[in-house]
Amino acid sequence: MSLLCELNAEQLKAFHSEAIREYNAFLDSGISINMARGRPAPEQLDISNALIDLSVQEMGVKAEDGTDCRNYGLLCGIPECRRLFGEMMGVAAENVIVGGSSSLNLMYDYIAQCCSHGTCGNTPWSKLNGCKFIAVVPGYDRHFAIAEHFGLEMVSVKMTPQGPDMDAVEALVKDPAVKGMFCVPKYSNPDGITYSPQTVERIAAMKTAAPDFRVIWDEAYVMHDLYEEKDVLANVFELAQRYGTEDRFFIVASTSKISFAGAGLAALAASEKNIKEIRARLALQVICYDKINQLRHARLFASLEDIRVQMKKHAALLRPKFDAVLSVLHEQLDGLGIASFNSPKGGYFISLDVNTGSAKRVGQLCKDCGLVLTGVGATFPYGIDPEDANIRIAPSCPSVSELNVAARILCASVKIAACEALLQSACCGR
Amino acid sequence: MSLLCELNAEQLKAFHSEAIREYNAFLDSGISINMARGRPAPEQLDISNALIDLSVQEMGVKAEDGTDCRNYGLLCGIPECRRLFGEMMGVAAENVIVGGSSSLNLMYDYIAQCCSHGTCGNTPWSKLNGCKFIAVVPGYDRHFAIAEHFGLEMVSVKMTPQGPDMDAVEALVKDPAVKGMFCVPKYSNPDGITYSPQTVERIAAMKTAAPDFRVIWDEAYVMHDLYEEKDVLANVFELAQRYGTEDRFFIVASTSKISFAGAGLAALAASEKNIKEIRARLALQVICYDKINQLRHARLFASLEDIRVQMKKHAALLRPKFDAVLSVLHEQLDGLGIASFNSPKGGYFISLDVNTGSAKRVGQLCKDCGLVLTGVGATFPYGIDPEDANIRIAPSCPSVSELNVAARILCASVKIAACEALLQSACCGR
Repeated sequence: MSLLCELNAEQLKAFHSEAIREYNAFLDSGISINMARGRPAPEQLDISNALIDLSVQEMGVKAEDGTDCRNYGLLCGIPECRRLFGEMMGVAAENVIVGGSSSLNLMYDYIAQCCSHGTCGNTPWSKLNGCKFIAVVPGYDRHFAIAEHFGLEMVSVKMTPQGPDMDAVEALVKDPAVKGMFCVPKYSNPDGITYSPQTVERIAAMKTAAPDFRVIWDEAYVMHDLYEEKDVLANVFELAQRYGTEDRFFIVASTSKISFAGAGLAALAASEKNIKEIRARLALQVICYDKINQLRHARLFASLEDIRVQMKKHAALLRPKFDAVLSVLHEQLDGLGIASFNSPKGGYFISLDVNTGSAKRVGQLCKDCGLVLTGVGATFPYGIDPEDANIRIAPSCPSVSELNVAARILCASVKIAACEALLQSACCGR
Repeated sequence: MSLLCELNAEQLKAFHSEAIREYNAFLDSGISINMARGRPAPEQLDISNALIDLSVQEMGVKAEDGTDCRNYGLLCGIPECRRLFGEMMGVAAENVIVGGSSSLNLMYDYIAQCCSHGTCGNTPWSKLNGCKFIAVVPGYDRHFAIAEHFGLEMVSVKMTPQGPDMDAVEALVKDPAVKGMFCVPKYSNPDGITYSPQTVERIAAMKTAAPDFRVIWDEAYVMHDLYEEKDVLANVFELAQRYGTEDRFFIVASTSKISFAGAGLAALAASEKNIKEIRARLALQVICYDKINQLRHARLFASLEDIRVQMKKHAALLRPKFDAVLSVLHEQLDGLGIASFNSPKGGYFISLDVNTGSAKRVGQLCKDCGLVLTGVGATFPYGIDPEDANIRIAPSCPSVSELNVAARILCASVKIAACEALLQSACCGR
């Protein structure tokens, strides 16, 4: 197949007509497919039904330290879960607080605390004259929404195959108003990129002008490999300890995509100093989190190895879905020069970049056909993709046959939008 | 028995010696009893074990609207739980958001939101030059701790047998800096007082200078009757609707002392306008709360009647404990003029007022004997009881025989402290 931009006007019109024909084959056929969010499929949730089935008889009600999990107590979580999440995040159990079911809530609360009360004795961010936060783009819309809510001005840094553009990050952190950054360091959302060891080390080592610079290190997909060949993430906390920057890191993980998306466990990890500060605030906020759910998880996952076994079951269900989408994308778009996309080794997303200025049009065409994508622009701060090029694909929830249809609609839409842009520019060029 | 203050010096010394003898009988006997917090006893927790035992087979995984409770979704909670809590709090289901397991967290988050972002278009409280909050005293230390954390200056208003001193409240709310108040309107913590219908109506009807005055209406013990003869709380939300003040109320309840203290459900109720605002913030904070735990509760408690049946089981376990403490208090302290206490018809506490200036001494004497009470002063803002007189007794957790011992230690300590004060003042009078 030739590059689309090299076709002459007639060839382009023919290509356009063919794309419309492909698209129209799906239009008005009552399709309703949602690829907007990283929702596990029902079959994935079934894997964890044993969590629900545990009875008092089987499970007991006491944590290993004797605490009755039905009652108040253990603000930081039961010891077995602190240890499990410590293993997952590469920190000691005493550096972990196991929260409710939402790691988003842990991040929200932490940013809220930095804004209203400050951290480690520094001025609360809300009392300063404008704070900035680094947004790695494309990135996770819910991270950006928290920063926006608290009035942290986002400054974009581009993602590279090795992680955030560290030259740009190191330049930005010389400004004391730059207070932190959000990272999804393994199988990033949406690019599926794992930060290289060098990138991780540079984030740990860099000098920041702000003494209270905070990296929100969201290990959302740290266990979420799709293939035997896995990405490996360097241990940021160990590196931070080596560079004396361990107060910089606020690490979170959750079992949202390990056990139940709506009823899993979330945890945070931080330095001793930060844990002490967070714990003091938490004591005002809750008496304790749900330890019965913690105990259920501890019974199902005695060690990280049990989670690895569980993740292979997830991968077996997810792999065919990623493969289905990727094979259609390759078949339909390779060689046209109108789109590029990643082939992630884990995580929940495929990131598709289309020609500048056509992502919104693609989103609209898909929507008209009954296919819902993540809102175009959502992967950028304030919902504005300056190049209107990035589309996030979440293939986890629909079935393989639905994904096959969805990917074809998407590809036809990408072709149509590309043709429209080329025809328009040819037209304007006249 | 004569009033202690009417005894002559010799009689007083004899009484003092006898009290010390009573006290010493317990000293050094290895007693370790905790009456500090309103913790349910293990037998109370056993009542709800069926919650844990529900299997996927028995329970299903779908809410009545078809939502898979294992997955993301339903930010405001499953319909059956919104309805249940609506019934409990006397509001429509659409005015309810079911949260995680902690009503404290819902209150904390709401105050945090009023401070950082304001409510209903009003200036954020943190941007104003000092805000005040009414603290009904004695009251709940965790309420006061939230206000203190967010720099809301607390102004105390005394509790009366009908609820807060409403003349004082109505005078205070003429100040626009006074932004709200915390209420535990049924079986108040620690007095066990239920606000009279007139008090509830005055709170709903009063004119406040601050347009964003908020009443945090904590229905912590709304289902928690101990006896057949129950207090009845007026429906504040209905009254508020009548007076057009429904935006004033932020109502919370939880099943912490209905099902599991550490793993129950919490919910908030508010006006349509407030719900809309809270929901928008919540959408940034969590994707959803744990709906599996919601479904468990919905299966166990299909209606408020099921909760009433459950509460009778709790009452049967709690009543002998309250009775044990109260009968010792009556036997040991009646007629001495050195203490007064309530006989609550529900809730979790007995409030004991001792002679001015002696509560701390009583707390210390108890502690030396191995009996831990709620930190003296904790029932007042900033932990300072200006009269050093109030002691909160939480009889739920220890056994009846432990409570018998605990109450005797407490009474001996009250007597000793009273004698010391009288002997000292006689001494100073010389």
